[in-house]
Amino acid sequence: MEAEGTRNELNEQHPMKGGDGLYSYANNFEIQRAASDATKQLINMAIAEKLDKEILLNSKTFRIADLGCSVGPNTFFAVQNIVEALESKYKQCQELNSQISEFLVLFNDHTTNDFNLLFTSLPQNRPYYAAGVPGSFYDRLFPKASLHFVHSSIAAILWLSGAPKEVMNKNSPDWNKGRIHYLNSGAQVVRAYKAQFVKDMEQFLQVRAQEIVYGGLMVLIISGIPNGTHHSQGLQCMTLDLLGSCLMGLVRKGETEERREMATEEARTVQEAYPTMGGDGLYTAGLRNYLYSICVCVYIYIYIDALI
Amino acid sequence: MEAEGTRNELNEQHPMKGGDGLYSYANNFEIQRAASDATKQLINMAIAEKLDKEILLNSKTFRIADLGCSVGPNTFFAVQNIVEALESKYKQCQELNSQISEFLVLFNDHTTNDFNLLFTSLPQNRPYYAAGVPGSFYDRLFPKASLHFVHSSIAAILWLSGAPKEVMNKNSPDWNKGRIHYLNSGAQVVRAYKAQFVKDMEQFLQVRAQEIVYGGLMVLIISGIPNGTHHSQGLQCMTLDLLGSCLMGLVRKGETEERREMATEEARTVQEAYPTMGGDGLYTAGLRNYLYSICVCVYIYIYIDALI
Repeated sequence: MEAEGTRNELNEQHPMKGGDGLYSYANNFEIQRAASDATKQLINMAIAEKLDKEILLNSKTFRIADLGCSVGPNTFFAVQNIVEALESKYKQCQELNSQISEFLVLFNDHTTNDFNLLFTSLPQNRPYYAAGVPGSFYDRLFPKASLHFVHSSIAAILWLSGAPKEVMNKNSPDWNKGRIHYLNSGAQVVRAYKAQFVKDMEQFLQVRAQEIVYGGLMVLIISGIPNGTHHSQGLQCMTLDLLGSCLMGLVRKGETEERREMATEEARTVQEAYPTMGGDGLYTAGLRNYLYSICVCVYIYIYIDALI
Repeated sequence: MEAEGTRNELNEQHPMKGGDGLYSYANNFEIQRAASDATKQLINMAIAEKLDKEILLNSKTFRIADLGCSVGPNTFFAVQNIVEALESKYKQCQELNSQISEFLVLFNDHTTNDFNLLFTSLPQNRPYYAAGVPGSFYDRLFPKASLHFVHSSIAAILWLSGAPKEVMNKNSPDWNKGRIHYLNSGAQVVRAYKAQFVKDMEQFLQVRAQEIVYGGLMVLIISGIPNGTHHSQGLQCMTLDLLGSCLMGLVRKGETEERREMATEEARTVQEAYPTMGGDGLYTAGLRNYLYSICVCVYIYIYIDALI
């Protein structure tokens, strides 16, 4: 609810690319799909083992939120899997068999996400009611104690509410010199990103704690790197450096009068070359998401029972 | 829920014109706004007098559905009014004062409605959580017993699920000769439209009866004509005849080879111009909206307590 929320304009600026064109997210989600497939069994286990039966027994409507759903089949795959796992749990529990709930799935993403495409591509024979909820998941999105299951995929929860302000400020000692990420940056920049992540996650957990019913379940799929590995070690570091260098070159070209217009287009081209970029007109949004994609190394699962 | 619903493809094909351009619904809603203003007091009275206090006492989240919300400020005016009336009732009841619910407003319209615009134009400081629910209100849209208050404005509930098939069939005795409405048509055509209305309203009430909690309230704002007035009497009859004649002229022009392609679009326009139209494809929302506007004569209020 905006009136009570902690709305941050930055939170709203980076949806996936809408539509169903060549470079749309809907047609470029293979990595996220692989992550979704890989986590299917773990979500099934979480529901089977962790979800309180009382939640199922006492819920006429079982409400599921998919945070950062974007568009395209991925969100539907994930939700279908969750619903099937819940139905399976119902069937396994004799006492639940006659009490089966109806499911309401609340698809959330930024207000500027392409909800039109999301809605028109909803599966025809889905076993759930569907609604779209616009807004940043770093703010309150749902009424108190109204969600039974919260899911957020690898393509969503990685996104910070925004880059740390100090790394974008040329006058700050933490300035990141126009770089697009913290890999191979100085310790101060890394610290700034880390602090932003901590702040965002605290906010995320605080608002979810209010929204999830007692005994509800939340599954967050987050990419990471193995313990003991420095963030600069790995393929993504080299790739990001190369990509960042290319983009910064384009920006420099754009600073000359003769090349300004073309450079703008080139920057957009770069933006569109990476399937899951955002739509705020700057190349960095697309890049950010690309960075996230190739950062997938290790999944971390967080099961939070009884957040409140 | 599609799996259990009675989905009718026709139901999904006729949203208001999206966007915020000159002919968009968002910029052409004055009549509907006037209707909304005119009904404000009646909705307030309905909530004050008819809504069961127990509903308020027992609902942590008070769920409101606005059916056929379209886009633009109208739906927000109506919802704001409903929420204010509910808050007022809370304040008037001492025992309710400490139990005030949070509000969740479910904005419903056809799947092809411009939900993107709806979401980006949501009021910033709204006193409710918001979600969009795509689908025809002649089908099930919400879980059982999950709504406390249902509202549908004059711009929505008038629309049939589709034109009666027989009036569009040249081989049927009920063929309406390509006319866009039943005014000044034969008795058989009028009967066909009436039968379609009865069928649709029965379906509408049946699905809502499942969705609304016991003791919930539904307010439907429907245009009509005074008792004893023949449907052909009134300004709208003449206007619709003139409009229908113009559109049919365009269709005839389209029968020439040179005009075929353009006429295809125009013919669709004719089919889809009137609230009770059939057909598929494109439409002229501005025209449809105009037809609605001139049809407004009398409002009928239906308060349904305890539908189930």
